Amino acid sequence: MLSEEVTIHDVARIARVSPSTVSNVLNGRTERMRPETSERVRRAIKQLGYAPNQAARQLKTGFVPVIGLIVPSVANPFWGAFARSVEKAALAAGYQVLLCNGERDPEREQRYAESLWSRGIRGVIFGSSPVSFDHLLGLSERGLQVVAFDRQAQRADQVGFDSISVDNELGARLAANYLVTLGHHRIGFLSGPIRTVNRLKRLEGFRAALEDASVPFDEQLIWEGALSSSFGDIEGTDIGRVAARDLLSRPNRPTALFAINDMYAFGAYAGARDLGLRIPHDVSVVGFDDIVLAEIVDPPLTTIRQPLEPMMQAAVKLLIGRLEETRTGSPEHTMVTPELIVRGSTARISARD
Amino acid sequence: MLSEEVTIHDVARIARVSPSTVSNVLNGRTERMRPETSERVRRAIKQLGYAPNQAARQLKTGFVPVIGLIVPSVANPFWGAFARSVEKAALAAGYQVLLCNGERDPEREQRYAESLWSRGIRGVIFGSSPVSFDHLLGLSERGLQVVAFDRQAQRADQVGFDSISVDNELGARLAANYLVTLGHHRIGFLSGPIRTVNRLKRLEGFRAALEDASVPFDEQLIWEGALSSSFGDIEGTDIGRVAARDLLSRPNRPTALFAINDMYAFGAYAGARDLGLRIPHDVSVVGFDDIVLAEIVDPPLTTIRQPLEPMMQAAVKLLIGRLEETRTGSPEHTMVTPELIVRGSTARISARD
Repeated sequence: MLSEEVTIHDVARIARVSPSTVSNVLNGRTERMRPETSERVRRAIKQLGYAPNQAARQLKTGFVPVIGLIVPSVANPFWGAFARSVEKAALAAGYQVLLCNGERDPEREQRYAESLWSRGIRGVIFGSSPVSFDHLLGLSERGLQVVAFDRQAQRADQVGFDSISVDNELGARLAANYLVTLGHHRIGFLSGPIRTVNRLKRLEGFRAALEDASVPFDEQLIWEGALSSSFGDIEGTDIGRVAARDLLSRPNRPTALFAINDMYAFGAYAGARDLGLRIPHDVSVVGFDDIVLAEIVDPPLTTIRQPLEPMMQAAVKLLIGRLEETRTGSPEHTMVTPELIVRGSTARISARD
Repeated sequence: MLSEEVTIHDVARIARVSPSTVSNVLNGRTERMRPETSERVRRAIKQLGYAPNQAARQLKTGFVPVIGLIVPSVANPFWGAFARSVEKAALAAGYQVLLCNGERDPEREQRYAESLWSRGIRGVIFGSSPVSFDHLLGLSERGLQVVAFDRQAQRADQVGFDSISVDNELGARLAANYLVTLGHHRIGFLSGPIRTVNRLKRLEGFRAALEDASVPFDEQLIWEGALSSSFGDIEGTDIGRVAARDLLSRPNRPTALFAINDMYAFGAYAGARDLGLRIPHDVSVVGFDDIVLAEIVDPPLTTIRQPLEPMMQAAVKLLIGRLEETRTGSPEHTMVTPELIVRGSTARISARD
């Protein structure tokens, strides 16, 4: 916050209450408050000219409230849809969104966050689930508010942010479990580097589903591709294709593939086709995300749906709550339930396998 | 430009030369200049402390130079790739990019442009090829620099900007001509509203190719879908699907479809599949753009490639030239040649048709 701006803390100090009491008054939650208290808070708000929301502040300053959004790469349609969901929720709340491609590069993410900060933007939604948030420590100390997607706070974290994610472990479990019930025991796991929290969780869930069904876990079927240095997510299709070609040309090939996201799954379609294998007759494929194209490809893709719109509504609400100081207190993690969407890319294992 | 900053015009006035002469000196183009002239310009630059490039300015102010990018919707992977190309070129030149989804809504585009302006951003690349640029007149008068993609200046324009586009007419002509040489005479044209310059040009090229081949033009085969109110490009697949289903279920159905972009083409794949028709055996499909997925879908899509990377390098260079005042003078239009990429979605017309 700019130092000349009145904050909720100033109001709380003058009214001799806690910031959360001020927040309660602002939100009309005064039932369990003594009337003198709420009255004192109202007087302090008036006295200091405190404008709790950005819309009011905008009237005063002519400044449009904006939040930043940092994603790995909008070249991946999932992040495009993600960005649109964030924007939709933000516009409904009177905010605009400025979008940055971080390419999963901490240095680049930090530069963008600093650039946003220097332009007066105080809140960022962070889509890229980085290995750590240490690169944002400095900005966080200066007051940058962050809501992280797909990255629950970790024990080693030096800085804590609000976060929201789908239950990644459950999602992968649903996918693997469905394949097991179709008779598949040899299932390939297609991914880029498995270092981020969300990918680790998906691998855990995958493994757990196999264990539940007493299917032996085969390390050889975990295909962990390296990403090329400078770019984020566009190579999903390329990696998926190479991975599928590799796994499916082995002597004891897997009969099903679980891809870390839908773009990898589309790549796996192409890789299977390269080998003359048909989906789902010769190999079943399950993705993750449920992007628009999942329904369009042939065969339509069985996948795990992330409910983007309600998630991003919640993320924007969390962030605006912090910015407008109607939410105080320690960081919270919100977990959303994913859903298995069964389409044509999965089938019961064929008799010959 | 901020009023306290020294501009190229100040240098030109002090040196008693034109701004383009200053620009020539800055860029080392002094061969055809009298030595006294270039020396006078150099003295004026030194005297005024003129810093022609943003990198130098940044050292002085600590401000990271940023350009804005307004596209219809990154939910369409073409715009995602477009944004990434712009960002790549900008980062190489020491600039960052802030990305906005305009959803082809002039009011929203204007709000974003004003928001960028209020944050000190003076240059914008405009991807959405709007019907008119009148909504940017005010900002343009205040000094906003714009490079427009896919929208050459029109006679009725009140404001002129630099622009760059692929030769849309030629692109559509290549597509239609290729289909005609394969024996197709009934070709559907799948599009959203045909009001913007780029789409009008594509329709012109399509029509011209048919005329060249003396193939009668059938107005009934131009499928012009309405876009839903608030959103831009994601419905490409939906419109393409509905359009293909409609055209292909008519008694005298087309034997080929030309889609206004690859997303519409993917939708057409699904629409053909809905009717039990095979591509390319029953119907050929050609797209426009050549996004990454064009190679991945089954069959791989024949399409018209827009050479995004070199185009966006040129666009960024144009814009930075304006911002750093090494380029002056009236707006220029750069036209780039598209390329027909033949893949598996097109075939010679079958005998029975």
